[in-house]
Amino acid sequence: MNVLAGDIGGTKSELAIYDAEQLKLKPTSAPLFGMRFLNREQSGFLAMLLSFLNQAQIPIDSACFAVAGAVRDGHCRMPNLSWDIDEQEIRAHLAINRVVLINDLAATAHGMLVLPADQLKVINVGNPLANGNYALIAAGTGLGEAIIFASRNGEYHVSASEGGHVDYAPNTESDIALLHFLMPKFDHVSWERVVSGYGLINIYAFLLASGHYFEPPTVTESIQAASDHAAAITQAAKSGESPLCIEALDIFIRNYGAAAGNLALKALATGGLYIGGGIAPKLAEHLIKGVFMQAFTHKGRFSEWMKNIPVKIILEPKTALIGAAIYSIS
Amino acid sequence: MNVLAGDIGGTKSELAIYDAEQLKLKPTSAPLFGMRFLNREQSGFLAMLLSFLNQAQIPIDSACFAVAGAVRDGHCRMPNLSWDIDEQEIRAHLAINRVVLINDLAATAHGMLVLPADQLKVINVGNPLANGNYALIAAGTGLGEAIIFASRNGEYHVSASEGGHVDYAPNTESDIALLHFLMPKFDHVSWERVVSGYGLINIYAFLLASGHYFEPPTVTESIQAASDHAAAITQAAKSGESPLCIEALDIFIRNYGAAAGNLALKALATGGLYIGGGIAPKLAEHLIKGVFMQAFTHKGRFSEWMKNIPVKIILEPKTALIGAAIYSIS
Repeated sequence: MNVLAGDIGGTKSELAIYDAEQLKLKPTSAPLFGMRFLNREQSGFLAMLLSFLNQAQIPIDSACFAVAGAVRDGHCRMPNLSWDIDEQEIRAHLAINRVVLINDLAATAHGMLVLPADQLKVINVGNPLANGNYALIAAGTGLGEAIIFASRNGEYHVSASEGGHVDYAPNTESDIALLHFLMPKFDHVSWERVVSGYGLINIYAFLLASGHYFEPPTVTESIQAASDHAAAITQAAKSGESPLCIEALDIFIRNYGAAAGNLALKALATGGLYIGGGIAPKLAEHLIKGVFMQAFTHKGRFSEWMKNIPVKIILEPKTALIGAAIYSIS
Repeated sequence: MNVLAGDIGGTKSELAIYDAEQLKLKPTSAPLFGMRFLNREQSGFLAMLLSFLNQAQIPIDSACFAVAGAVRDGHCRMPNLSWDIDEQEIRAHLAINRVVLINDLAATAHGMLVLPADQLKVINVGNPLANGNYALIAAGTGLGEAIIFASRNGEYHVSASEGGHVDYAPNTESDIALLHFLMPKFDHVSWERVVSGYGLINIYAFLLASGHYFEPPTVTESIQAASDHAAAITQAAKSGESPLCIEALDIFIRNYGAAAGNLALKALATGGLYIGGGIAPKLAEHLIKGVFMQAFTHKGRFSEWMKNIPVKIILEPKTALIGAAIYSIS
């Protein structure tokens, strides 16, 4: 049995065909055929899909697509594209019945449950409960979250979450000043405004406007010229050339830890909290250093309770794709 | 088959024996035998339980106790009492195998799923998804939450939550001033510090300290003399005698709405958000008036999405007891 899996993001998409038996044995095994696409170079989802299948020339039995957006009644309108993706329409074109769309964070959750240990970087060992819930947080372009519920019979059930859109909660005077800076800019200041790629840019703008930092003009220029501002800020922080960027990254990581802790409390994630998304693997050494876990565990009477929760970074970049494939055959 | 159910709260406990068949037919039907206890008049949980069974003289086949605290490995140490409650110990004393402890909010969630419509007061009709998750929020002495997750096969799974201990998120300048007021008092300002009976007292103290209100000394005295400060503040607000109490209740209700909205986003509660606890039924008319739903739906790009979520107050005060009994036989 062959499974078509897709990870349809805001800027790029990944399509792959897996052999189901091979996937069950080793989830990180290479697909029979796979391709990566830049969405802006494609005229639409279906055109991309049919082009892929035409090149693959491999028959498929089921398909699952992880999409960066809310799925309602088998339909997703991709927020950053003009793409409408619809299960029924795909079914008609592929002439197979088993076609399903799932949220990309839900797909990542399905994938993380089957990842080998070497694809997870441990930030906190903790002391997990045997049949505890898990939670997943992933800062990328936005802030994605998912909750993995453990039912009484020991099965796990994945639920998407819109937790990134929850009200932002400041923990320090500096955070409150950041909130004051963001309030006039946005109708509503959610966690995504702080903990995401755009969030890091917001923090940088806040610190620059504060006038407390001398930023070398060359750094400002290189950040503004970069195609990915957040990556440029991270780079300038890592190289040590900009105290402002160092502080911005510190505020970002501290808030990431606070958001992860809040999710773990909400989801009662006594099994573990996983960090997905593209940013965390690049910051693994910084996340281990302390400020992330300090914020994660800073929850008053629940601070000791928080220390028991294992925290792990997902290293495997194809986790959502693997999860979509796994979901399709489970 | 007879079921022993218990709702063991911080100050009082309720025990009841139900006929399982009758309970399944009509969850709000009267128990075969029931009693209410003030915990401080009891020497301990087991003594209370054995005294109850001695008076009931009805054989039981299974038992479930809803406890106001975290249950870990069948054990709960009640936070506000010196009571340790343990499944194994109860099993040994009752000589039955089916004994289980569950969190009281989880029990309320099990109960709310079987309540008749006349025990729910609709705050927002919404447009629920057929197989959507539910969420439960309940301000009482503390702030309790639970998530009811819908699995792919249409079954519901209840999970306790410690969401009341999540970082408090201010939404207005007044909320930020409240956070500033609470920060030096607590190691960590959680939502429970604002949205709970104690939370209302905190809001009252904040407004009194602001010096912006003239509080008639008779009101201050009667609140300080009351055994339940929060109830006295609510009463003074309802009677219209204190602008300060009116404002305090308004801030409380607005924050309750914001907290409920955050939970609904986190839990992806497209099925509905339920409000439990002792405070909401007393404030039903205030909750309907507007400020609760304004805050509930004030979530930026998700404001329209929020309007689709049904919001209902649980009126039945025995919902946790009923839920414990239902859980025991399910």
